[in-house]
Amino acid sequence: MNELQIIKIGGNVTDNPYALSKFLKSFSQTGGSRILVHGGGKEATRLSARLGIDTRMVNGRRVTDRDTLDVVTMVYAGLVNKRIVSLLQSFGTNAIGLTGADGDSIAATMRSKSPFDYGYVGDINPQSINTGFISSLLERDMIPVFCAINHDRNGMLLNCNADSVATALAIAFSKKCPTTLTFCFEKNGVLSDKDDEQSVIQTIDSVSFEYLKGKGIISEGMLPKVQNALEAIQQGVRKVTIKSWEHLNDTLGTSITL
Amino acid sequence: MNELQIIKIGGNVTDNPYALSKFLKSFSQTGGSRILVHGGGKEATRLSARLGIDTRMVNGRRVTDRDTLDVVTMVYAGLVNKRIVSLLQSFGTNAIGLTGADGDSIAATMRSKSPFDYGYVGDINPQSINTGFISSLLERDMIPVFCAINHDRNGMLLNCNADSVATALAIAFSKKCPTTLTFCFEKNGVLSDKDDEQSVIQTIDSVSFEYLKGKGIISEGMLPKVQNALEAIQQGVRKVTIKSWEHLNDTLGTSITL
Repeated sequence: MNELQIIKIGGNVTDNPYALSKFLKSFSQTGGSRILVHGGGKEATRLSARLGIDTRMVNGRRVTDRDTLDVVTMVYAGLVNKRIVSLLQSFGTNAIGLTGADGDSIAATMRSKSPFDYGYVGDINPQSINTGFISSLLERDMIPVFCAINHDRNGMLLNCNADSVATALAIAFSKKCPTTLTFCFEKNGVLSDKDDEQSVIQTIDSVSFEYLKGKGIISEGMLPKVQNALEAIQQGVRKVTIKSWEHLNDTLGTSITL
Repeated sequence: MNELQIIKIGGNVTDNPYALSKFLKSFSQTGGSRILVHGGGKEATRLSARLGIDTRMVNGRRVTDRDTLDVVTMVYAGLVNKRIVSLLQSFGTNAIGLTGADGDSIAATMRSKSPFDYGYVGDINPQSINTGFISSLLERDMIPVFCAINHDRNGMLLNCNADSVATALAIAFSKKCPTTLTFCFEKNGVLSDKDDEQSVIQTIDSVSFEYLKGKGIISEGMLPKVQNALEAIQQGVRKVTIKSWEHLNDTLGTSITL
């Protein structure tokens, strides 16, 4: 492969039929080898509520008991993943939806129950990524579409974080070919004023990250996203960008640099 | 490929954790190229009920409005498919779960709204099956696991019948290599007395089928299953069997013959 793009879209895009269709159309018009990773948390929370299952988030992660694991498996691997794949197919892009269990693509390890028991939540080691199988799909001009459900190789599915899945894929493939990583979401990038979409921070490196974190400018859900982005660039991913889903094919957004 | 086995398991097996695990263990011990097709109707009906969505069956087919399409996509493509794939992986079988949208494996056509409007229900033409892509997985010693959700290539998912998916796959592959088709369910085969598991009819051909149908011995849900089986044998599938999931690897059951 010449170059590989890993693109992640968040739950605010997948949950909005207009945005999702527009995004996937842009995505289909981009050439080259690509992997799409998606979230779907808003729909999982909604289905949980309809089923009378409490949603509990701790440090931005969904506490995943057995019933919640069923909900996220249904919503991420079923509803959202197949919606994306069928739309991409209609745009002429030969997509294939995958969990980490499919083709043993991505193995995860259940997070330690101490200091906090998140339940069926997994973390990924980039070395567990089956780049051989995924490359064989890319070589057939297919577009793998991953949700954040992976497996432990012992028959258990685990709920992972979609940003972390995209990061692990990018790190694993950057050992094989030049790889870029793009986080697409509903904002124009990392903002210095969260209420001003024009206040995009052009570049963030590990030094400015510490400053912005200390000032509280990067906080809450943006913290793990920027941490993932920094980890990717430090581990050899060529280019990492955090940007709006509406600007997939232009140069706007926040660049993460070494 | 030397020979390909297409094996279908019904919703009564996928819905029973003990049966499913035991079946998948036997399945994993079988060698050779195989494709697994599964149902999941009981769990779809249960989830519909929890969500306050009415289930309406007409001629054994689920009337599939938009909400029901979401339910079956979540249950078949998410919950049941990934449960099967992760269990197979734990038994050392490199499974990959697929809908027809994935890799454009199987296209379907929405059933005509007349004489009855089933909603988002599709029928499959064996010629629409992407045997090239599916073969590429088999050549990597992977086991494709299909649920009965397919797509119309225009962005719409369609709810199909799992027996028909298995039949269409068997017919399509029988043009390429010797192919067998096995329907596994909770009974020992087609029974002459539905309350007597020892009353397995050894062989059925198109002549005896008409007789058994006329006598009411083959009726209700067994009718389309035997019709699918007869169609497969008439279209060149080498061997077609209807048997218990507990007897996957032995010779018991009903053989369908020309």
